[in-house]
Amino acid sequence: MTQTTELLANFWEGRWQYGTGSGTGLYDPISGAELVRVDVTGLDLATGFNFARAKGGTALRALTYRQRGAVLSAALKVLQANRDAYYEIATANSGTVKNDSAVDIDGGLFTLGVYAKMGDTLGDRHFLVDGESARLGKDPLFQIQHVQVPTRGLALFINAFNFPSWGLWEKAAPALLSGVPVIIKPATATAWLTQRMVRDVVDAGIFPAGALSVLCGSSVGLLDQLQSFDVLSFTGSAETAAVIRSHPAVTQRSVRVNIEADSLNSALLLPDEAQGSESFELLVKEVAREMTVKSGQKCTAIRRIFVPEALYQAAAAAISARLAKATVGNPRNEAVRLGALVNRTQFNAVKDGLEYLKTQAEVLHDGASHALVDADSTSCCLGPTLLGVRNAAGSDASDRVHDTEVFGPVATLLPYRDLGHALALVRRGQGSLVCSLYGSDKVVLAQAALELADSHGRVHIISPDAGALHTGHGNVMPQSIHGGPGRAGGGEELGGLRALNFYHRRAALQASTAVLDLLKASEVQTP
Amino acid sequence: MTQTTELLANFWEGRWQYGTGSGTGLYDPISGAELVRVDVTGLDLATGFNFARAKGGTALRALTYRQRGAVLSAALKVLQANRDAYYEIATANSGTVKNDSAVDIDGGLFTLGVYAKMGDTLGDRHFLVDGESARLGKDPLFQIQHVQVPTRGLALFINAFNFPSWGLWEKAAPALLSGVPVIIKPATATAWLTQRMVRDVVDAGIFPAGALSVLCGSSVGLLDQLQSFDVLSFTGSAETAAVIRSHPAVTQRSVRVNIEADSLNSALLLPDEAQGSESFELLVKEVAREMTVKSGQKCTAIRRIFVPEALYQAAAAAISARLAKATVGNPRNEAVRLGALVNRTQFNAVKDGLEYLKTQAEVLHDGASHALVDADSTSCCLGPTLLGVRNAAGSDASDRVHDTEVFGPVATLLPYRDLGHALALVRRGQGSLVCSLYGSDKVVLAQAALELADSHGRVHIISPDAGALHTGHGNVMPQSIHGGPGRAGGGEELGGLRALNFYHRRAALQASTAVLDLLKASEVQTP
Repeated sequence: MTQTTELLANFWEGRWQYGTGSGTGLYDPISGAELVRVDVTGLDLATGFNFARAKGGTALRALTYRQRGAVLSAALKVLQANRDAYYEIATANSGTVKNDSAVDIDGGLFTLGVYAKMGDTLGDRHFLVDGESARLGKDPLFQIQHVQVPTRGLALFINAFNFPSWGLWEKAAPALLSGVPVIIKPATATAWLTQRMVRDVVDAGIFPAGALSVLCGSSVGLLDQLQSFDVLSFTGSAETAAVIRSHPAVTQRSVRVNIEADSLNSALLLPDEAQGSESFELLVKEVAREMTVKSGQKCTAIRRIFVPEALYQAAAAAISARLAKATVGNPRNEAVRLGALVNRTQFNAVKDGLEYLKTQAEVLHDGASHALVDADSTSCCLGPTLLGVRNAAGSDASDRVHDTEVFGPVATLLPYRDLGHALALVRRGQGSLVCSLYGSDKVVLAQAALELADSHGRVHIISPDAGALHTGHGNVMPQSIHGGPGRAGGGEELGGLRALNFYHRRAALQASTAVLDLLKASEVQTP
Repeated sequence: MTQTTELLANFWEGRWQYGTGSGTGLYDPISGAELVRVDVTGLDLATGFNFARAKGGTALRALTYRQRGAVLSAALKVLQANRDAYYEIATANSGTVKNDSAVDIDGGLFTLGVYAKMGDTLGDRHFLVDGESARLGKDPLFQIQHVQVPTRGLALFINAFNFPSWGLWEKAAPALLSGVPVIIKPATATAWLTQRMVRDVVDAGIFPAGALSVLCGSSVGLLDQLQSFDVLSFTGSAETAAVIRSHPAVTQRSVRVNIEADSLNSALLLPDEAQGSESFELLVKEVAREMTVKSGQKCTAIRRIFVPEALYQAAAAAISARLAKATVGNPRNEAVRLGALVNRTQFNAVKDGLEYLKTQAEVLHDGASHALVDADSTSCCLGPTLLGVRNAAGSDASDRVHDTEVFGPVATLLPYRDLGHALALVRRGQGSLVCSLYGSDKVVLAQAALELADSHGRVHIISPDAGALHTGHGNVMPQSIHGGPGRAGGGEELGGLRALNFYHRRAALQASTAVLDLLKASEVQTP
């Protein structure tokens, strides 16, 4: 049976190559059916890495930022033309409803489009001027000018299963715009969508040879290939991140690494907000949304909800009431709002995580109470579960909820005594991707945001005046940095032009002003 | 005998504490006499780290950038008043002549002064605005503003023996200006000067309690204390760097690390420069200077000298002639230009390194030919040695000279065929701190600088118009970044305000414009 599904090809050394093994299956999380297989057995890793560096890197660096932006625009057009196929793959392989597939697919295309346009802003140049020139002594004729030039290596991406499209393009777009070739190794469980997107742009002849490669299957041996000027971006578990960071490529060859790992993100309703106030309702709505979008399989999803102790029961009731309305089941049924978890492994991990948290928390809304629509108990469907600890002392005592990321439709409600207590509890996440604040007192909102800025990559502030405008706690906008310190991995992606830093090397050029003037002029003259 | 010298105290938990062990001696590299001892036995590391974070961090963050700059200015005044004592320690413990001690002592004070002044530029605020705010959708009322806030941890510095003063202040000044407390662990061999400088500013009551601590002795157990929001800066060997990078503090707790390790820096005379031309002479002068300053014990010193094949003999003769004039010996004798290597271990390492390189290179000028002034063969004095490979094929064949940093007055002359060949040879250093270029063709200089920018933290361009003005191949200016990719460790220090990035966390604050306006206004209102 496993021999009958299509084996996906890898794009390697500038051509489509099949692994020589029997392959690993990718499955439909509703029916359990095998969809396709992936395999990298027998591929020559060293040759492919060198091909990407030599052919891809050289070709990309020969283009200007504007030209590379145009290449990204062309890729975007191809992807837009094939959108329907991506939605079909997402439904089948990720088990997501249309709205959830959109977060991945259209989110990826939107991000790609933003970086494509940035090429025009950067213009027809081959390097970036970094800051102003400055004199190095009393005489102004000898100065320093910093520049950023593309690193002469490749970018290896080891990606997570939950964003096969967005995870590809939010990383590949800044890399390619920077002139750095990309090797993408998607998570096996959902590699199909990544592979199809790469296939479409490759077959359309969009990119120079070696600029974009895809390996679907095992990641064994990939890190051994990395050299000093390569960069590595990883999204996934903290455990794998630690293994990656310990690899000689990183410890001995100084390969630059970006990590995005676990995160116990929070939502915080400020003190002095009454039950039923605009801010209260905004929190309730956003929490319910974040718990259910992509069945909570988002690294930015809200895991901990902090409310004033007096509002615990009211918040529990209001959030639970919203969750109760969520229909769970087969994403092909239009009435369904929550599709499946990606596979049985994740399903079991979420179930186990729930049991682990339940030892320190009560169940406020039980996901098991949801009847499944067009799906049975063999599917990977799971209703949303709201946990809670009854009082502020419980918020302090429950270490598990501050330490354990259950990667599904699960969050925990935690009461606090006062703002200082709330901020201290938020910080027990030890560094998160995002915290959202809800309140009407703009001064307190601003102060709380600054208090939390050091331990969060992003603070999302929802005041009533922004209630209809805000972009969502969990949505990652390409204009804002994405990443977080500590447990979140210490990485930084996106943030507009800031994303390009990772793929560039900064150098201080010290020279006479005559040489520096020529150097800066060359950026517009080089063909 | 080892019991009779002074045991240096550690400044720990806000008070001077002595180790309870017998201590490790620091020696005079000329006489071999023990000078002082250091020891950290029995100090409570966990308590001291927590003290720095809690007391030092809180106190520093309560100050504005301007106030912290004023603290640095006050420290500078104290240090300037005690300059003579520092020179005495340097002569005795580092074996350096006055000019070489100045590179460390006055270089450190100059750098401290530059960052002290920066406080005024940054003003009376508690966080830094990072870039412009940008709208996140069509409606301009919801926007993103990035900010940088001080990390709420501490900065641990594990420093190298060659710059006990500069290495302290080039790191501590940006950290303290950023509001981050510092624990400095100087290299044991020369810890005395670091300890004395810290003692002087601490005893003058310059810094808030916990802002600056010093541990003199073993580094065992220090990394175990690091937590997620701490940062670690290391200068030293690539081997130790790899051990540091593999520590759970880094791999599991995402401690941010800056590494500055080995570097095979180069000097490159462009093609078409005649023997005796201005550029030729500038190269010869700078190479001889870099080989002899601090006896070549500078991470930025020139190790590889690239000249057109036809100029090999001429360059060998000209550099050797300059080196021959260098007097070597006791730094207390004013006729001496090269003092000692720092200790017997380094002396032996340089001798061994020379033998290793000699298997692939000839001796053009032999350091052993220098008579020692006021010193005998038991001292750690060593004359400068110029090695060379005879032809361009030899430059390709000699892998050792591109891979091995001999940390003393040693460099190798390497002939090349054409500019492409020269650039390829330079790049065989696999990432260096600095490369200097010598030539009169400004267009070629600019192009070569851009070609090498990705693999060097700094490119120093010496054209005849800058011959009298340039700041030196090896001198690290606080305005320019210091660090290099690959073998050089992948780190980045200094670079003016860029140095503060390492001690700050960047966050994206997404909010209504009303909240963002308040937030930005708060930076000038907070006391």
